[in-house]
Amino acid sequence: MKVKVSRKAHFNAAHRLYRKDWDDDKNTQVFGKCNNPNFHGHNYELIVSVTGEIDPETGFVMDMKVLKDLIEEKVENALDHKNLNIEVPEFKDMNPTAENISIVIYNKLRPHINKDHELEVVLYETPRNFVTYTG
Amino acid sequence: MKVKVSRKAHFNAAHRLYRKDWDDDKNTQVFGKCNNPNFHGHNYELIVSVTGEIDPETGFVMDMKVLKDLIEEKVENALDHKNLNIEVPEFKDMNPTAENISIVIYNKLRPHINKDHELEVVLYETPRNFVTYTG
Amino acid sequence: MKVKVSRKAHFNAAHRLYRKDWDDDKNTQVFGKCNNPNFHGHNYELIVSVTGEIDPETGFVMDMKVLKDLIEEKVENALDHKNLNIEVPEFKDMNPTAENISIVIYNKLRPHINKDHELEVVLYETPRNFVTYTG
Amino acid sequence: MKVKVSRKAHFNAAHRLYRKDWDDDKNTQVFGKCNNPNFHGHNYELIVSVTGEIDPETGFVMDMKVLKDLIEEKVENALDHKNLNIEVPEFKDMNPTAENISIVIYNKLRPHINKDHELEVVLYETPRNFVTYTG
Amino acid sequence: MKVKVSRKAHFNAAHRLYRKDWDDDKNTQVFGKCNNPNFHGHNYELIVSVTGEIDPETGFVMDMKVLKDLIEEKVENALDHKNLNIEVPEFKDMNPTAENISIVIYNKLRPHINKDHELEVVLYETPRNFVTYTG
Amino acid sequence: MKVKVSRKAHFNAAHRLYRKDWDDDKNTQVFGKCNNPNFHGHNYELIVSVTGEIDPETGFVMDMKVLKDLIEEKVENALDHKNLNIEVPEFKDMNPTAENISIVIYNKLRPHINKDHELEVVLYETPRNFVTYTG
Repeated sequence: MKVKVSRKAHFNAAHRLYRKDWDDDKNTQVFGKCNNPNFHGHNYELIVSVTGEIDPETGFVMDMKVLKDLIEEKVENALDHKNLNIEVPEFKDMNPTAENISIVIYNKLRPHINKDHELEVVLYETPRNFVTYTG
Repeated sequence: MKVKVSRKAHFNAAHRLYRKDWDDDKNTQVFGKCNNPNFHGHNYELIVSVTGEIDPETGFVMDMKVLKDLIEEKVENALDHKNLNIEVPEFKDMNPTAENISIVIYNKLRPHINKDHELEVVLYETPRNFVTYTG
Repeated sequence: MKVKVSRKAHFNAAHRLYRKDWDDDKNTQVFGKCNNPNFHGHNYELIVSVTGEIDPETGFVMDMKVLKDLIEEKVENALDHKNLNIEVPEFKDMNPTAENISIVIYNKLRPHINKDHELEVVLYETPRNFVTYTG
Repeated sequence: MKVKVSRKAHFNAAHRLYRKDWDDDKNTQVFGKCNNPNFHGHNYELIVSVTGEIDPETGFVMDMKVLKDLIEEKVENALDHKNLNIEVPEFKDMNPTAENISIVIYNKLRPHINKDHELEVVLYETPRNFVTYTG
Repeated sequence: MKVKVSRKAHFNAAHRLYRKDWDDDKNTQVFGKCNNPNFHGHNYELIVSVTGEIDPETGFVMDMKVLKDLIEEKVENALDHKNLNIEVPEFKDMNPTAENISIVIYNKLRPHINKDHELEVVLYETPRNFVTYTG
Repeated sequence: MKVKVSRKAHFNAAHRLYRKDWDDDKNTQVFGKCNNPNFHGHNYELIVSVTGEIDPETGFVMDMKVLKDLIEEKVENALDHKNLNIEVPEFKDMNPTAENISIVIYNKLRPHINKDHELEVVLYETPRNFVTYTG
């Protein structure tokens, strides 16, 4: 009996969308206000879901406290109150779009989740824009 | 690496649920208060999701601004502040239930979405009732 | 020890903003899309608050179940799934703006609330527009 | 044309997580504060979804009023304002984790849903912890 | 220049509404399902607000981290995952209604807030029922 | 008959909390992670409320469309997708705390609101931290 368990978390960060190999005009044309060279920022709302069989002993798929601590250790400590472009190595040569951030978060968590479990990451960049990545 | 990107939008409209070929008793029995001949209305909350490969150049599956403008042009302009039964041609002979509205919205958007991308429409008729259509 | 107790409720309705004594041009200029002669509609979210001394016997200012039933009987029965302009007598000669609806709701409830208690009505016309009336 | 229709409901209850065959130390180690022998409680938010073909006559997959009444009769009456461990027979020998509660709710509803329809249960234990079960 | 700063927090607990000096019939008549002798429970959402002059040095009325820690130490540690009737001394002879809980929380926080600052407590017992206490 | 009308808006921005005349140690001690010299950011949710008499002709205290456009012109254009410390002149020598941002927003709007009307600004820095300023 497979169940999906989900945990919401939160971090906030500054970022800028642009490509170093494009000139200013092209960056502004493609990324608009998100290309502001002085950065802007977001409150990112994160929902991490793990799907697997219920452990008949505990009644848990995965202990929510363990999942909460894992998100804090692997994701919040790496991204919260950070400038994604400058301070998060994964975005040195990759644009910190919501799509790419969701993949970075997935990759940070995947090694620490039971191999038999599926992982899903939903990331809200604003209350009206969000992305979903399932590996 | 497929990611699903989602955008929330909003419109409000009046409607009435009934069938012209049923008498009043049957319409009231099946549709209850929703059969009020003077109409009632809703704030519809809409979530449109597009799933596809990330463009490695931009880091976008689909530019959210483009998706926002597309929803405004094709959906909000057609449905916002309208009487669905009287003013929206698709509902001339089709009951404007949440289910049918979600399909109409899907069909309005589908031709304008990249063919390799999947499309999903979630429509909240009230904060407690909503529907999902994926084609 | 005065405490304010609040109860959320919900109704949906159709309406139209216009003045019979204005011509179409003036109505459209002032009320825009809200002047659609075929009506549009909203999910109205309502928060009714009653402020007063705690009854030391029960620990209640006012029993929430009583307040819930009162809102249902006096407000929801009168407004839910209705066309405000056509079916609600208070709006026969008064524009059903959120401001005016909040006053109508206040007046429907006030006679049934303890005279020593204060009454407040908050009415959301959309998730982004709301009004507050305190008598 | 398959559509998924969803209805939100609500109940609140007390519970405690523990195993009778474990000693206090092990129960506290695994279940932490949730093992409080005097119980704690939650407002459970429930989303029940039914997926199937739209009935061309009504435009409904399933009448939301029928689904609402079914949830009230089969789920809310059984769980609302209850102590899950003491008063709900399914949890006599099963830990009332969110995962297990979602399966109990699914099993209560499944016999009353059209066999051709799929059923999904989403259960929020807190605004930050929730589970999904699809049978 | 006075500003009100607000911080949301969360705890969950079991409780029961009844008076020891009333018989079962009267308790059931007044408190209904909330009188379940086996307890039920809630996720309580708490908003604590402090109003005062902005400190011109920091730009803070009160450091939100300090307020967050104070709520955790004085309120969450005392109430979270507790049975209010059995484990919280203030409710030994006082009914744990939302009204009374809000006053207990206010009294726990008031001594630790700057005397020149005003304090307000908003407590959601369910998403639809909440109370406000300002001393 | 005075009514308060409220409009929600949204902007996102980067900022950093620190004082130029303090050394790094003191800034970190007081402002913690918010002192990150590379900036971090937020989705700011804004609620602007105007209180006044209802215009008996229109039924409006203030046309919500006018209020929406005013917020966009005076607040969103000045703050959205900006680095508050670098690009918003008001914060050249003032810390962009939520408290100070709410006062800046109030001062931007006040000259454009009817003098007989009261103005209130509520600003959410995160879903859990918010401030209220009423002049």
